[in-house]
Amino acid sequence: MIRQAVIMAGGIGSRLKEKTTAMPKGFIEIGALPIVEKSVQKLFASGVEEIIIGTGHCAEWYEKLAARYLGVKLVHNDKYMQTGSMGTLACCAPYIKGDFLLLESDLIYDAVGLRVLINEVHRNTILASGKTGSGDEVYLEADKSGYLVKHSKKWDAIASFSGELTGLARLSKETLAAMVLYMQENTASDPMMEYETAMSSVSGTSGEICNRIYIRKIENYLWCEIDDASHLENAEKNIFPKIREAESLTAIRREVLLNPGPATTTDSVKYAQVCADICPREKEFGEVMAWVAEELALFAGKAGAVETVFFGGSGTAANEAMISSCIPESGKLLVINNGAYGLRMAKMADVYRLDFDVYESLGFVPIDTEKVKKKLLDEKFTHLAMVYHETTTGLLNPVPELGRFCHEHGIVSIVDAVSAYAAIPIDMDRDGIDFMASTSNKNIQGMAGIALVFCRQDALRKIQHHAMRNYYLNIWDQHSYFKKTRQMRFTPPVQTFYSLRQAIIEAKQETVEGRYARYSACWEELVKSVKRLNLEMLVPESAQSKLITAIIEPDSPAYNFEAFHDLAYSHGFTIYPGKLSDANTFRIANIGDIRPMEMKRFGKILEGYMQNVLADV
Amino acid sequence: MIRQAVIMAGGIGSRLKEKTTAMPKGFIEIGALPIVEKSVQKLFASGVEEIIIGTGHCAEWYEKLAARYLGVKLVHNDKYMQTGSMGTLACCAPYIKGDFLLLESDLIYDAVGLRVLINEVHRNTILASGKTGSGDEVYLEADKSGYLVKHSKKWDAIASFSGELTGLARLSKETLAAMVLYMQENTASDPMMEYETAMSSVSGTSGEICNRIYIRKIENYLWCEIDDASHLENAEKNIFPKIREAESLTAIRREVLLNPGPATTTDSVKYAQVCADICPREKEFGEVMAWVAEELALFAGKAGAVETVFFGGSGTAANEAMISSCIPESGKLLVINNGAYGLRMAKMADVYRLDFDVYESLGFVPIDTEKVKKKLLDEKFTHLAMVYHETTTGLLNPVPELGRFCHEHGIVSIVDAVSAYAAIPIDMDRDGIDFMASTSNKNIQGMAGIALVFCRQDALRKIQHHAMRNYYLNIWDQHSYFKKTRQMRFTPPVQTFYSLRQAIIEAKQETVEGRYARYSACWEELVKSVKRLNLEMLVPESAQSKLITAIIEPDSPAYNFEAFHDLAYSHGFTIYPGKLSDANTFRIANIGDIRPMEMKRFGKILEGYMQNVLADV
Repeated sequence: MIRQAVIMAGGIGSRLKEKTTAMPKGFIEIGALPIVEKSVQKLFASGVEEIIIGTGHCAEWYEKLAARYLGVKLVHNDKYMQTGSMGTLACCAPYIKGDFLLLESDLIYDAVGLRVLINEVHRNTILASGKTGSGDEVYLEADKSGYLVKHSKKWDAIASFSGELTGLARLSKETLAAMVLYMQENTASDPMMEYETAMSSVSGTSGEICNRIYIRKIENYLWCEIDDASHLENAEKNIFPKIREAESLTAIRREVLLNPGPATTTDSVKYAQVCADICPREKEFGEVMAWVAEELALFAGKAGAVETVFFGGSGTAANEAMISSCIPESGKLLVINNGAYGLRMAKMADVYRLDFDVYESLGFVPIDTEKVKKKLLDEKFTHLAMVYHETTTGLLNPVPELGRFCHEHGIVSIVDAVSAYAAIPIDMDRDGIDFMASTSNKNIQGMAGIALVFCRQDALRKIQHHAMRNYYLNIWDQHSYFKKTRQMRFTPPVQTFYSLRQAIIEAKQETVEGRYARYSACWEELVKSVKRLNLEMLVPESAQSKLITAIIEPDSPAYNFEAFHDLAYSHGFTIYPGKLSDANTFRIANIGDIRPMEMKRFGKILEGYMQNVLADV
Repeated sequence: MIRQAVIMAGGIGSRLKEKTTAMPKGFIEIGALPIVEKSVQKLFASGVEEIIIGTGHCAEWYEKLAARYLGVKLVHNDKYMQTGSMGTLACCAPYIKGDFLLLESDLIYDAVGLRVLINEVHRNTILASGKTGSGDEVYLEADKSGYLVKHSKKWDAIASFSGELTGLARLSKETLAAMVLYMQENTASDPMMEYETAMSSVSGTSGEICNRIYIRKIENYLWCEIDDASHLENAEKNIFPKIREAESLTAIRREVLLNPGPATTTDSVKYAQVCADICPREKEFGEVMAWVAEELALFAGKAGAVETVFFGGSGTAANEAMISSCIPESGKLLVINNGAYGLRMAKMADVYRLDFDVYESLGFVPIDTEKVKKKLLDEKFTHLAMVYHETTTGLLNPVPELGRFCHEHGIVSIVDAVSAYAAIPIDMDRDGIDFMASTSNKNIQGMAGIALVFCRQDALRKIQHHAMRNYYLNIWDQHSYFKKTRQMRFTPPVQTFYSLRQAIIEAKQETVEGRYARYSACWEELVKSVKRLNLEMLVPESAQSKLITAIIEPDSPAYNFEAFHDLAYSHGFTIYPGKLSDANTFRIANIGDIRPMEMKRFGKILEGYMQNVLADV
């Protein structure tokens, strides 16, 4: 698994003087974006978690870039004037943890090259192309098995042609170490060493077998290095349009889901599902799950405070895991019901024949917390179950207030946060939440199939001796087995984990706060249209989550939800009926990979439809 | 969703006379395969369930092809000498059920074109390319919105160039009907009408808006029609190698999983996960699930005899659904335990506090069925739970014998068929199986994430009034909700369903019998190596499933499972330790998308490792 990339960006770019005296080559813009920024985007979209950029000349440009892209780490080569690309790469070496992608900063390339490298069976691989005739080619020579033995800018210097160096490669940490050693031993004779020199040397016949570097040639690969003005012109006129077209062919038809989950996903999350087959009991997959567990827990609390427990299943499976696993025989549970999801938890408590009661509250007004608190104490409840964000109505419940109250009084709090997690900033310690359910397919923006239960460490330890009420959904068994083995007890949805991993990479970039700001901006666009139409919303604005909005259907015989749905669907928007029996609503969710501009477009469709309907009254 | 394709193959190919006097053009071979056969393979790999080929000239060639590809349907155009391609297409029209792909038979093309068409938002779309200079171009002209208004072989006849016709398109059933009508109305003036003439006409300004055909242009699309000898030469030397390279870039690194599931999958199953976002409560997704349910049921019984019930989860979830849903309070269950999976069902019965007993049998010898039968009757059991194929050992249990016995005596049979289904031919009526569990990720060769419960209709009806023991895994609730709504009660793993759909398309091609034959051939290769090494197998050959083989570890201090695993892993094979505590075994499964040749290669690795180990004794 490739988790890091290095971009070598220390060079001066002397042949593009007028453009790069005061700017690194990577900041040349093609297609209205600096080429290195495009490269950063492609790397994150390919599943790279961290990009290390080795800087030198005009490093301040990269500092500005890194400020905008979390996950970009800068390493400065102080001696960039006295060293070549290998010097810059050597500065990055201490931060490399495993196999990584290696790129030059001044490239444009078809992203398929990254996928080919990531898919390669050879841990060390150079991506090569056929002859480009660019005038600045580095020719590669391979041995009989296809491994690099020599490179040269002179055609005559190689015995046979195996491809042109593209500036894209993958290397193991160990091979990089060998390259650094080679550089150190040869500084005197080659102080300005290029990284390809070190590669040829460690891969060549005198090197160790584990350091051999395979040449993967794509004859018609679309790429271009920008070294001089003619390269730039060729890139802009010829190569870039072809790259753009080639990459566009893998784009998936955009459907904007305004139903309350599964939410719209990015193409990179979709493609992350496509990976080599793996047995989920392999160490490599255990590492993926462990990373996913750890990163998801960081969206629910401070490092080490929260354990993530996975199940193959939906958000309801996660809720059932909590209701069936967290309450001892002697426990007494209060369930707050102010919507379909609170009611569902009450039904589960009934099925498992728990000692429980239900606190009923209307779906469209805030819960009277004082009444809940009084009931909890008066009737000596040991557990409280509640929904953070009632997906039925878009009502945000006062979970932190009730959670903290529970903690003050030794009551265990169980929260259905299925549609709140990863949009609402949560700290389970701060907010007094002991157990919390969510899913891979809502605000975290992954694919459906993984149920998530987040557990505060001390609350989790306390459930270990509870009698099992079921088997598949038992939290303690699932947790303790995973801790011991880094495996799930039963086959997990493997590919869904890979897409969840990609979703996390993207969520970390955006941050939960940033995501909520984007969701809120989408909601503002919706509300503008709703207000222009004088439509009524079920829940007062102040109590709304800004994630899902229940809108009262117009009282017009011309209104027909199906017709409205079909109109929106034909424009690429999926909407969803209401779920409350006592109010006629339709619901618009603004979660997932959607933009305010799209919500504005939907607002126009809503307005167009409703104006017709209302004109008919 | 596109489920059908039409290939127009009625033409005579007069310009390639020497090759096509006695052979249709589609049977010209490039890359050692007839080009139309390659096209058929690409269509099935893209998710097409049925390919209709409209034949004419030398139709017998197509009859031979159709005999080898289930899912290919032939429609003969009796008047192929007196009509053009539109005549052939019209013959196919009665068999079209919805949106479909339309192709000419004499094409080679990059499969990305099919994906682009399938992804298109416009239901009617022609795929066009930039200028090819082939000498036989059909130029397309579009209106301002990009819809086809005119085509011509003469450059001067079109007002503006929007692309070249490639011979690949997608159409709606309704638009096809309009084209057929246009042909019928114009037979007199244009008896040899080509299909593009009908397309231009219905899409043009005089046609209806719903029949407009969008031109989707890929400037650098790799394709070629083979109309004459120069086309053929260009195709072989130039276009075909480029197509082969372009398609190879999307190939996923091959890892052969010899663990007992998840099994190795095809790349087409992997890529089927990548599709437009969809709300799983939409009608379109309901149709996908309903089709999947129906097709899966056909691998378990006759049409209409079996209901498929889905859960998001693993095979264990399916087993727990059966154990918790199928036995009434008054029931008495016998569980046969001869391996880890029988034991697991007993544990579930214990957790749910059922009235149950366990029949213990050794994991490596056949069950004494007479003893089981006696115990069932003597102790008045109402339910029997057993494992069809013990994944622990590779032992095949006598399910049909015991199942039929149960039926004779009114006992309900519950079968864990997780690793038997879709490899062992099963007919639940014939074999006396009432409920049967499996999963999406073993022999059916889909991705992990969907638990399957197959239910005989009358057995299913009888459980509807059972008290619920849990919520998420309740079979009756899940079934009845799905029947009413074509939705799952809780969010299903959407993308896993699309890959399961693709896996079914491929399983139907192969048939369960064909699959078992391939698996058996793989097993034979394994056993050859085992015998050459004089290694002992845990289960006598006659009782083995030929799906999973437990091999006794050699009694040598030099043997180390981890070292063996790592060696195999470095060659792209994943193996798995044993699971029985009382015998030291390792297990080799030969299920999934693997070939006897690969098993032979693995045999060599096994032999190499073991010979070293045994030499050390």
